[in-house]
Amino acid sequence: MQTGLSANAALRTILDATPVAPSETLPVSAAVGRVLAAAVESTRRLPPHDNSAMDGYAVRSADLRHASADRPGELRVAYEIPAGGRADRAIEPGEAARILTGGPVPPGADAVVRQEDTAIDGDRLRVFVEPAPREHIRDAGEDVEVGDRVLEVGDGIGPAEVGMLAALGRSVVSVHQRPRVAILSTGDELVEPDQPVDGGRIVSSNSYSLAAQCRELGAEPIYLGIARDTPIAVEELFRGGLSADFLVSSAGVSVGDRDFVRGVLEKLGCALVFWGVNIKPGYPLAFGRFEHGGPLVFGLPGNPVSAMMTFEQFVRPALRKRMGHRCLFRPTLRATLTEDLRKKAGRLHFVRVELERRDGGVFARSTGNQSSGVLRSMTRAQGLLIFPAEETAIVAGETATVQVIDPEFFASDSSGF
Amino acid sequence: MQTGLSANAALRTILDATPVAPSETLPVSAAVGRVLAAAVESTRRLPPHDNSAMDGYAVRSADLRHASADRPGELRVAYEIPAGGRADRAIEPGEAARILTGGPVPPGADAVVRQEDTAIDGDRLRVFVEPAPREHIRDAGEDVEVGDRVLEVGDGIGPAEVGMLAALGRSVVSVHQRPRVAILSTGDELVEPDQPVDGGRIVSSNSYSLAAQCRELGAEPIYLGIARDTPIAVEELFRGGLSADFLVSSAGVSVGDRDFVRGVLEKLGCALVFWGVNIKPGYPLAFGRFEHGGPLVFGLPGNPVSAMMTFEQFVRPALRKRMGHRCLFRPTLRATLTEDLRKKAGRLHFVRVELERRDGGVFARSTGNQSSGVLRSMTRAQGLLIFPAEETAIVAGETATVQVIDPEFFASDSSGF
Repeated sequence: MQTGLSANAALRTILDATPVAPSETLPVSAAVGRVLAAAVESTRRLPPHDNSAMDGYAVRSADLRHASADRPGELRVAYEIPAGGRADRAIEPGEAARILTGGPVPPGADAVVRQEDTAIDGDRLRVFVEPAPREHIRDAGEDVEVGDRVLEVGDGIGPAEVGMLAALGRSVVSVHQRPRVAILSTGDELVEPDQPVDGGRIVSSNSYSLAAQCRELGAEPIYLGIARDTPIAVEELFRGGLSADFLVSSAGVSVGDRDFVRGVLEKLGCALVFWGVNIKPGYPLAFGRFEHGGPLVFGLPGNPVSAMMTFEQFVRPALRKRMGHRCLFRPTLRATLTEDLRKKAGRLHFVRVELERRDGGVFARSTGNQSSGVLRSMTRAQGLLIFPAEETAIVAGETATVQVIDPEFFASDSSGF
Repeated sequence: MQTGLSANAALRTILDATPVAPSETLPVSAAVGRVLAAAVESTRRLPPHDNSAMDGYAVRSADLRHASADRPGELRVAYEIPAGGRADRAIEPGEAARILTGGPVPPGADAVVRQEDTAIDGDRLRVFVEPAPREHIRDAGEDVEVGDRVLEVGDGIGPAEVGMLAALGRSVVSVHQRPRVAILSTGDELVEPDQPVDGGRIVSSNSYSLAAQCRELGAEPIYLGIARDTPIAVEELFRGGLSADFLVSSAGVSVGDRDFVRGVLEKLGCALVFWGVNIKPGYPLAFGRFEHGGPLVFGLPGNPVSAMMTFEQFVRPALRKRMGHRCLFRPTLRATLTEDLRKKAGRLHFVRVELERRDGGVFARSTGNQSSGVLRSMTRAQGLLIFPAEETAIVAGETATVQVIDPEFFASDSSGF
């Protein structure tokens, strides 16, 4: 087992151990937010026929040479093209066909004139313009031709993809499976949120924040509960998570007196790959894998901020890899500090910061008390500023890399138009 | 009824008519993604007690004046503080208490020494450092004091908020209700995706892309189906959506021959506020409201791109306002064009663009055919470039405002550390 890894080495180790999830076939509307596991080729043309871009009349452009407001062309309206149907005969010279937007252009016609450019009296149509050939006609296949590869492996399924798949008549689609993440915590001092906190008891809030972190990125959390501090209780709870893809435990995997977890994991066939990463908060992070199938195991620290932070930095990218995403990480930007930050060399610090956009740049200031027990440093944080391991000071006015963890930071208060 | 509005006037009209949703009380874990309708004040301190930041021993610092590796202080370990319990008596001069990380500091103690800085033999403890008062002690209430307002109206509920609410022992929370959006389309030519498209029939794909647009932003779509082109069929379908918050119809509300929808809406008590917005794609957008309660009504154009675009520009901000969000709009940025764009003056164009980050800037190029029937212009688009109504050219090298519609555009391919 390795210990005292750099953040980068820990991340690489975890990502190398994470396979992309197998595929499954889902109804399109249930696949929103998933990632395609197979490319989609079209078996249809879109649109299927030449069709009208306007409400008006399908015509033969040769019939309307030199037509104008002063010298209108005269045609006979032979029929109307029904919505959802098509003409049963071609239009002949001197004829027009009434057509609505989207209607299939009838044989014989090579242009559409807009209703506004005509006058109608019974079946006699006067046309005040000279249409160019193909005018106001949308070409069959201008969107998609048969055999076109319209979506690629790794494309995310959003609204436009749903519309495209529906238009192509696809009712199911092959996507990567959603990762199942078993979550548990260990500790005699922990209680559920609705239980009393007298004596030294504290609420097991980590399981709830971790489950929300899973949901936010589209993974499925499975909450196993709290294990009391005995090997039997810990083993029983861990066994309940062995069929998941990831098993995430908070507290318990440490060098403390109460650490049964490592022993239980070994008994179950899980070898710890590393324990301890040179970061703050979050040093006591453990990562293990089973030799013969089984979940990837993450032993997160017990402090609320440390648990969320190590999930954010190490579990989230691994889950995104498993889900088939191309980009695994949060948006990053360079921000200018508005205050001095100092620390000892040796560990990379993730400093919780509030962000402000002004003067064409982004400015960062600490959310205050950076203790790993202070959850408000997370509720207030829009970003995590990376204070590299070997640096000891970043002073006001200098820039640093910030991971943006609050998607609302990008939302705008104006439409842009 | 107004017509030919500017994009801005249409947006203002819609937002002015949109109320913020009433509140409801939900279990915290079901409230992820919602927006708080009432501030949260704490009835607890977090942490509840002074507690240890380390595994080690709680001591009286006065007992260890000048202690060092050469001249260790000597103490007797009086007891161990159990996890989830607390000491039943104070430590006396000359005593220490075994304590684990997070354990409540016993009465009498005013510092914690780390395990690494001690040696133990039976109950005799040698301490090799001189602790400062309060060293390695986390103060009770350093995160939250009783009465602190920890979350504000308008805060979104994400993982950190879930963790905070759990830690405070809150199992329910007051959030704005999720908008219900009834979706339907009208047209004899429309079929569901699994039905044949022979003749002039086309798939009613809009309902599916619109439902996905609702889901993506956290609203609840209710799909009513396809109304055939008769007043009775249209009225029946619209009646099914009257209890929703928004009613979104694609196609049908126009000046075409088949437009029964306006008549039906008037019969039901809905007055059209405007029809026609000077934008492309999406001119034939209608907006109506009921005089005495009832949904806001959006008649979107039938073309697939126009339907998605008008939802994006007008329905989405209104839904976000209703959900209680502070910022209603997509992220915007300035991008440099890599090609010339030209149009006639008069309508604001939303140009579907692909975006590329390079040389410290963002570059935009058209996704190709901008026809309102070409769905691939949407599946490929990461942004919508705003080509203002009165401008006729933006040439390569100039910048323009782009709305970023693909959240994955911000995702990063590196961790930042």
